[in-house]
Amino acid sequence: MKTTSSLFSQTQHSPSFWELNKIAKHEGTTLKDFCIPVNSYFPNPNMMNEILKGVEFSLKYYPSQQPTLLKDLSAFVDVPEKNLVLGNGSTELITWIDHLFVKESIAVPIPTFGRWTDQPAVTGKKIVLFQRLEKEGFHLNIQSFVDHINKTGAKSAVVCNPNNPTGALLTIKEVEDFLEHLRHLDLVVVDESFIDYAVEGEIPTAATLIDRFPNLIVLKSLGKNLGLHGTRMGYAVASETRTKILRKHLPPWNINGVSQKILNMLPKYRQEYLGSLAKNIKDREFAFEAFSRIPGLKVFPSKGNFHYVKVPDYVDGTSVRNSLLSNYGFFVRECGNKLGSSKQFIRIAIRPQMESQMLAIALKDTIATLASETQWKPCQEA
Amino acid sequence: MKTTSSLFSQTQHSPSFWELNKIAKHEGTTLKDFCIPVNSYFPNPNMMNEILKGVEFSLKYYPSQQPTLLKDLSAFVDVPEKNLVLGNGSTELITWIDHLFVKESIAVPIPTFGRWTDQPAVTGKKIVLFQRLEKEGFHLNIQSFVDHINKTGAKSAVVCNPNNPTGALLTIKEVEDFLEHLRHLDLVVVDESFIDYAVEGEIPTAATLIDRFPNLIVLKSLGKNLGLHGTRMGYAVASETRTKILRKHLPPWNINGVSQKILNMLPKYRQEYLGSLAKNIKDREFAFEAFSRIPGLKVFPSKGNFHYVKVPDYVDGTSVRNSLLSNYGFFVRECGNKLGSSKQFIRIAIRPQMESQMLAIALKDTIATLASETQWKPCQEA
Repeated sequence: MKTTSSLFSQTQHSPSFWELNKIAKHEGTTLKDFCIPVNSYFPNPNMMNEILKGVEFSLKYYPSQQPTLLKDLSAFVDVPEKNLVLGNGSTELITWIDHLFVKESIAVPIPTFGRWTDQPAVTGKKIVLFQRLEKEGFHLNIQSFVDHINKTGAKSAVVCNPNNPTGALLTIKEVEDFLEHLRHLDLVVVDESFIDYAVEGEIPTAATLIDRFPNLIVLKSLGKNLGLHGTRMGYAVASETRTKILRKHLPPWNINGVSQKILNMLPKYRQEYLGSLAKNIKDREFAFEAFSRIPGLKVFPSKGNFHYVKVPDYVDGTSVRNSLLSNYGFFVRECGNKLGSSKQFIRIAIRPQMESQMLAIALKDTIATLASETQWKPCQEA
Repeated sequence: MKTTSSLFSQTQHSPSFWELNKIAKHEGTTLKDFCIPVNSYFPNPNMMNEILKGVEFSLKYYPSQQPTLLKDLSAFVDVPEKNLVLGNGSTELITWIDHLFVKESIAVPIPTFGRWTDQPAVTGKKIVLFQRLEKEGFHLNIQSFVDHINKTGAKSAVVCNPNNPTGALLTIKEVEDFLEHLRHLDLVVVDESFIDYAVEGEIPTAATLIDRFPNLIVLKSLGKNLGLHGTRMGYAVASETRTKILRKHLPPWNINGVSQKILNMLPKYRQEYLGSLAKNIKDREFAFEAFSRIPGLKVFPSKGNFHYVKVPDYVDGTSVRNSLLSNYGFFVRECGNKLGSSKQFIRIAIRPQMESQMLAIALKDTIATLASETQWKPCQEA
């Protein structure tokens, strides 16, 4: 019989909550998902009921094509339709951006979202890695990154903003500066999958810069931010030239009927969505305080809806993850398989305050227990 | 204000039922979809309820990756997991098959499913057309097609079996013979999107031949056959070498959570599914008789769940489609924009017998009316 922990050896990404939950139920546990960073306050019950009422129709009829779907997206994100492309998750768009616009090489600051290093490898591109430094709080040093790009001759670059998994944010002024220095590249992607959580009030997106920088593509998750990541939705913002190329190559009907129904409803629920972001931000502040109080743990300030956390030298992230999972049913992301990270790091998704409080208690206890076990070992071996 | 008929000028494929239905409601009509050929008897109400109960979870958690999903598909279609790949609709697989395996050129008998001529054009491949002949009932003359391939030097070939939109079927013996002649090609695709409806009893699929023909890929719709085409699902059967390449290139998480839930349930509902096919076949026999009785109409015998129908010379398919839509709310597929077809042809999806009976009455009336209008015109102009 498989155990929850054994599933991690089978995939480079995390095993899905489906599979873990199935085994956890068998083990008599209820899982709490601190692995996938999602919106805890969206959709509200009204919207969820409206989705559920429409599901049967959504499943039994073909969805529309992009031109129809983009009307609703445009109204929701306030970007002209001509500059938008919808993907079956932002992952589908990453795949096609790599195929269509990454010519020879791509510069990637690490640690980063795994697809930005895995995908260009699939198509045999040269991946120019650039290490974000712990001593700089994993903040991207733009000048050093630009120098590195110029020195290595990389033809394209990507930056996640806020960064996944570290949560470090470049201001819109810094992004502008960065783009100004990289006008000579084929492509610069700003992956803003988590930017909606950056600050309260206006979202500091680079989407407003596409007219000034023709080589820019801004990428966004939609499913995770809407708390509906099972449905697969993401989008890109770019010049009309580039959105036309992307739309021409993407498989038709790539957006399923349930996603269409959700897109239809988004403009109506825009205020509720913006309100939900503010609540997630409050939860992030709470979680930062709660985790920072745990002895030995280092929590990096984050503008995403997750925290990058360093566990003490005398334990490792894999043991912490496995203990949390089997003793408490808390599922966190161990970052040992991310380039530029190590087993000393875990990523913890933002959850409502009560849940973060519970996790903080479990985490404190787990680290103390693991530490005492480590201290025993030399005695037993002696 | 848009009208139902005006939507057809906007897309090469048909407008979606969503859009037509929205306008039809405004016009006070209830639409009946004879355009998209789907399974009228699946899922049964039990299965639909089970899907609906699981939808909220399916939307709120990430779906699994291919290795997990293929277990259920394998149990349902009785093909080893190693030989299967799941797509976000068979359309996603067509896109990737073209990108990865069609090198320079592809031979395509026409009329055919539009993606087989549109997709290779997107990537600049040479498309070698081969006309199926009306006088042969659109049956594919294998020897002529093979000769044409050899003469033109096409490097790959595709055949839809049964053919869409004509419904003509090659027997498994003929497919074998065809593959034997084309061992020298890079790729032969047998698109079996509608083969489940071919005959009662065992499905005559070429999937059993993949071990003998390494250049073969068999493609299947899943969504349409299950009566759940809003959810986007299709799959390919091929050698392990090819499925590995496809899986490596397809975007991860390409199957959404609702599709995962459906896949989970399929093995349990296999008998119900097979039973539903037999009912569709009975409906096809009924529809063939009903439409064949209409004066001036030629109905081609079909092994798909649709009929290819030729309207008399003195009317055209566009007028027939538009009249049926605005006078009766019956939505059929006019085939004037399909290569190798013309405005004289419409495709009518198989629907339950009562609905086909109603359509037959409407069709008879429509053709008679249009004919009388046409006969008037010369008098008015005189």
